[in-house]
Amino acid sequence: MVDAAVRPTKSPTVEATSPAIDVPLVNDLLLGTWADIRRQAREMLKDSAFWRQDGLGMDEHRERVLSQLHLLVENKAVHRAFPKSLGGEEDNGGNISGFEELVVADPSLQIKSGVQWGLFGSAVLQLGTAEHHEKWLPGIMDLSIPGAFAMTEIGHGSDVAAVGTTATYDPETEEFVIHTPFRGATKEYLGNAGLHGVAATVFAQLITNGVNHGVHCFYVPLRGDDGVDLPGIGREDDGLKGGLNGIDNGRLSFDHVRIPRTNLLNKYGDVAADGTYTSAIDSPGRRFFTMLGTLVQGRVSLDGAASWASALGLHIAITYATQRRQFDGVDGHEVVLMDYGKHQRRLLPRLATTYAQIFAHDEFLQKFDGVFSGRTDTPADREDLETLAAALKPLSTWHALDTLQEAREACGGAGFMFENRLVGLRADLDIYVTFEGDNNVLLQLVGKRLLGDYAKQFTGKDAASLAKFAVGMTAGKLFHGAGLRQFGQSVADFGQVSRSVENGLREEQQHELLAERVQQMIADVAGRLRPGAKDKELGARLFNENQAELIEAARAHGELLQWEAFTDAVHRVDDAQTKAVLTWLRDLFGLQLIEKHLAWHLMNGRLSMQRAQAVSSYIDRLCARLRPHALDLVAAFGYEPEHVRAPIASGAEQARQDEARAYYADLAASGDAPIPEKALREAKKR
Amino acid sequence: MVDAAVRPTKSPTVEATSPAIDVPLVNDLLLGTWADIRRQAREMLKDSAFWRQDGLGMDEHRERVLSQLHLLVENKAVHRAFPKSLGGEEDNGGNISGFEELVVADPSLQIKSGVQWGLFGSAVLQLGTAEHHEKWLPGIMDLSIPGAFAMTEIGHGSDVAAVGTTATYDPETEEFVIHTPFRGATKEYLGNAGLHGVAATVFAQLITNGVNHGVHCFYVPLRGDDGVDLPGIGREDDGLKGGLNGIDNGRLSFDHVRIPRTNLLNKYGDVAADGTYTSAIDSPGRRFFTMLGTLVQGRVSLDGAASWASALGLHIAITYATQRRQFDGVDGHEVVLMDYGKHQRRLLPRLATTYAQIFAHDEFLQKFDGVFSGRTDTPADREDLETLAAALKPLSTWHALDTLQEAREACGGAGFMFENRLVGLRADLDIYVTFEGDNNVLLQLVGKRLLGDYAKQFTGKDAASLAKFAVGMTAGKLFHGAGLRQFGQSVADFGQVSRSVENGLREEQQHELLAERVQQMIADVAGRLRPGAKDKELGARLFNENQAELIEAARAHGELLQWEAFTDAVHRVDDAQTKAVLTWLRDLFGLQLIEKHLAWHLMNGRLSMQRAQAVSSYIDRLCARLRPHALDLVAAFGYEPEHVRAPIASGAEQARQDEARAYYADLAASGDAPIPEKALREAKKR
Repeated sequence: MVDAAVRPTKSPTVEATSPAIDVPLVNDLLLGTWADIRRQAREMLKDSAFWRQDGLGMDEHRERVLSQLHLLVENKAVHRAFPKSLGGEEDNGGNISGFEELVVADPSLQIKSGVQWGLFGSAVLQLGTAEHHEKWLPGIMDLSIPGAFAMTEIGHGSDVAAVGTTATYDPETEEFVIHTPFRGATKEYLGNAGLHGVAATVFAQLITNGVNHGVHCFYVPLRGDDGVDLPGIGREDDGLKGGLNGIDNGRLSFDHVRIPRTNLLNKYGDVAADGTYTSAIDSPGRRFFTMLGTLVQGRVSLDGAASWASALGLHIAITYATQRRQFDGVDGHEVVLMDYGKHQRRLLPRLATTYAQIFAHDEFLQKFDGVFSGRTDTPADREDLETLAAALKPLSTWHALDTLQEAREACGGAGFMFENRLVGLRADLDIYVTFEGDNNVLLQLVGKRLLGDYAKQFTGKDAASLAKFAVGMTAGKLFHGAGLRQFGQSVADFGQVSRSVENGLREEQQHELLAERVQQMIADVAGRLRPGAKDKELGARLFNENQAELIEAARAHGELLQWEAFTDAVHRVDDAQTKAVLTWLRDLFGLQLIEKHLAWHLMNGRLSMQRAQAVSSYIDRLCARLRPHALDLVAAFGYEPEHVRAPIASGAEQARQDEARAYYADLAASGDAPIPEKALREAKKR
Repeated sequence: MVDAAVRPTKSPTVEATSPAIDVPLVNDLLLGTWADIRRQAREMLKDSAFWRQDGLGMDEHRERVLSQLHLLVENKAVHRAFPKSLGGEEDNGGNISGFEELVVADPSLQIKSGVQWGLFGSAVLQLGTAEHHEKWLPGIMDLSIPGAFAMTEIGHGSDVAAVGTTATYDPETEEFVIHTPFRGATKEYLGNAGLHGVAATVFAQLITNGVNHGVHCFYVPLRGDDGVDLPGIGREDDGLKGGLNGIDNGRLSFDHVRIPRTNLLNKYGDVAADGTYTSAIDSPGRRFFTMLGTLVQGRVSLDGAASWASALGLHIAITYATQRRQFDGVDGHEVVLMDYGKHQRRLLPRLATTYAQIFAHDEFLQKFDGVFSGRTDTPADREDLETLAAALKPLSTWHALDTLQEAREACGGAGFMFENRLVGLRADLDIYVTFEGDNNVLLQLVGKRLLGDYAKQFTGKDAASLAKFAVGMTAGKLFHGAGLRQFGQSVADFGQVSRSVENGLREEQQHELLAERVQQMIADVAGRLRPGAKDKELGARLFNENQAELIEAARAHGELLQWEAFTDAVHRVDDAQTKAVLTWLRDLFGLQLIEKHLAWHLMNGRLSMQRAQAVSSYIDRLCARLRPHALDLVAAFGYEPEHVRAPIASGAEQARQDEARAYYADLAASGDAPIPEKALREAKKR
């Protein structure tokens, strides 16, 4: 059967001759822009001092991770983003790249480093000014000042603007009074707050001269030199969590704690000695979002770490699946798990998604680096970066949980053994889906941004403006500026029986289906919200009724971004065989997205029944075609035994299987093998 | 809008007046046939001695659970299934009911009890004969003989028939020699094998006089009275697992371990002193499945325990969602999470599914009790029971993981705190999806059974036999014998624009859609397998290509069973208001199933585009309608504070929210509230 969607354009015979991917080439592609730093980090992490020790209790695990943080300082692994004047490198993209790699050593190590240098340190760096940098950054960098990032409160997670903690200026003493006015305003879930933190960057409502200027960040010492908490500081340990127990999360409350006026991190807003407030940003709303925007790197790094954790999980599960055997095949020998259709269906689409995420992440990281280096730092760039973060982080973190779980189940009981990594990684990454922005809340932000773009571009309801919007809406807008993909095929073209079913699912059609779905869903939601434009109460009700679909549209947008990044990566490959296999993998990614949303495509007339029915069997064929490349595709992640550390992926299973097969072969050869009763009965019948 | 599907038939005004459910009545309905025993178990579990202590390390946790097992003995909580002659009650359904309830105390306690009395003890009871019962059951019952159930091997989990362990009869000494011939034949993941077990029921290939009679079960002492492992016994500790760390799982291997001939549990096959093998069951295959079939209760109890764990998770998340507030609403006050459309969409369909599962489980338990009591114990009943177990256990155990995860995410960071139960329950239940039968393998068994039924009933390809099959295929066959639901509406009837869209999604249509989907999928798979009927290699390839869809068809069968059980339960309710609300909940269950498979229904012409588009908005409306009843519906699970034990569901959040609101109200009343900068700027503009 001619299979246009997966046939490489230049070499039609490649398919038949079973191409092989160039593993080092794909590894380069996956490691991306900061490949050198990633390799350097992985080399460092071969030292077992960085590895998680499974048997440690919470207390010992916390101390081990703290000591590992000191090791990171010694290895100069965590200062890349800091100012050159203080020994840093001002390399934002490289910093995040190296940081993400820590996830394979121990996610607790990754996140505790993130708290110290990515949140606490970044708050001082990004929200503070020169005096603050000189005073505190050296101690933050060398870990002599472990600190907490005190933003979230028990009563306010996603809605940071509404935190209850107050910072009231007292001109008499030129101090701010930091105060927790009710229990719900207690700062909560803060890494380093349970135990190790000696200072915190605290987000509080800045009040001076009777005016609340909104949330600002303050540097608050927690402990004196004697190691005892300062007066007014309340500290509670969060105790055991579902994962990340190498981190001492805790609560902080403040009972009229006084700090010097100059402890306000005053880059975006300042208070003079007499209590006069000034800010270069007039709008309190924009000022707030600018401040929060400087902290986007948390989301950037979670997107990368989650994607690489998925890769590690698939490395383990796919390796095991090519060695473990279960149930006899036609030839009387037991079949390896990876040869079962269902097993391929479980693991290979997730492998394709992981590739897509890693490619999308690198583009995301480039965007981040552009903004934070100042090279491409406009308000529009920052807004795009925020949207990108809010679209990608939810998808990759959910994917990590889904993939690690499927990997664990695909390994059966062995997957449940802690030593095989999957359950531990999953437990640790669980919180990634709700911290640094709850995934659903982030996707809602994306949805609102898409609605905003829609409203801007689509003023009349005529076909011309709709078409203009359709172009503007592609994810490419964010990645590629004006250089958008455009496709001649119109919606009406679909569903024609005269075109072969397969032709309808090529690269161009995949993009069209994915892009138009975003556009149509946003247009649909916008249309349903319109009656509420001038009636606040009706507007709120309508928004609530459409909330789930808006979030789904945002997810579709993120999926489109990932698909485009994967496709761009494939286009960069010159090696024909590698390109062929990666094209199959990209097709698998695209088609499983289309399959997931098949009902939508049918109900919106985007796919004919024939084409829709072809999607699933196409996926099955792609899985079968990718099966021989599965090991190469996980090898391209580049993980070495010191990173994997899972006995089931070490070759032990292969050795056991070989031993069992040799035993039965020897037994048969010896002539001593017992006769199966069934065979005896059949022989007697004859 | 007239909403026929959810309008109660007798009282059309009920909808408008917001009915209230009769909570005790629904509680009775949910607790089911053995409600008294469940209540008795829950009363017992109010004693904190049975509760999990989160902070315990693995070793302490194991000892605590062992001590809790002794407490269960003291409370006479675990002997209901054993013979009356030995102090039991021969009450199989009651036994499982009480056992399942242990999950809310600590899943480790549930599963370790299951190992001791449900697997190890059951093997002796079900596979042994009077002598064995008298000799070992008293010690097993009073826990003086803790034991392991040694079936699974490293190399053979689901494929039990292929285990490598051998039991070779030596007529010279009248002993069996138990032996592990290669590492892959090591018994693995066995509860009680790591530490506490002093004996094991070991499954091994019975070889006598040079013939292998297949897998049989042997009672093998592991330790002498001195507490030291006997010669030839190899024991390894599995160490830390993803959950259930209160259980000492481990490995056992046997180096030519000799046991008396009479240690063969010989109910279904025996070896005489001279080595002659005899069995009442001629066919080795049927004999094997009969032996395994006696051990079905593991699956029964996992189905129940998983359903009740889901209920507990929803109790916690829904309680929290009605107290926690986030983001301001139109009235300026913060909105409780449960009032968000997306939050309802996340929790309420899962609540509906949990209800369906609990109702289906009770019917399943009745079937089990009928077979094991001997009341309805025919080979056909046993086969139906096996199929039921294989269909329901996968769905409910996966649902538990999905629900506990969604519940945890819906509680944000608070959900990740161990004290709030959700992460611990999820980690413990993780293994439920692959033990006692891997879920995918079980569903494949169901699929094969459905294919078998199809082949039996559908000999010609004419419409009459197809219709006959359509009737035979409903899940009701298993539950209701010949008393099947039949519906006049034909497939052709669907898609008519003249019928209102709503009318197309009533109870009858839900059943028709769900039932016909099973039938059609099986027919489709059967058709695609047909060319391989006489060609073994082609047959294997075709089966593999259709494996994923066959498993999906089996899942659809299980969903139908659950839907029917829910519907039967609703029909048993007399109270009109309760019936109305439960009907909405059942509709929500049915419609979310249809939504999940919407593409299939569209591609197979079962739903018109109009009706398909109505499904999602229908679900949204049902969620909104059920929102006011959410707390009542979780209250009906009947969990008390001693069972819930999650601080976030204790009312603490409500107290915090009330305190915060009072603080702001007082501040506003005092006239001292700081003026928001934004308000000041707007005032200046005027």
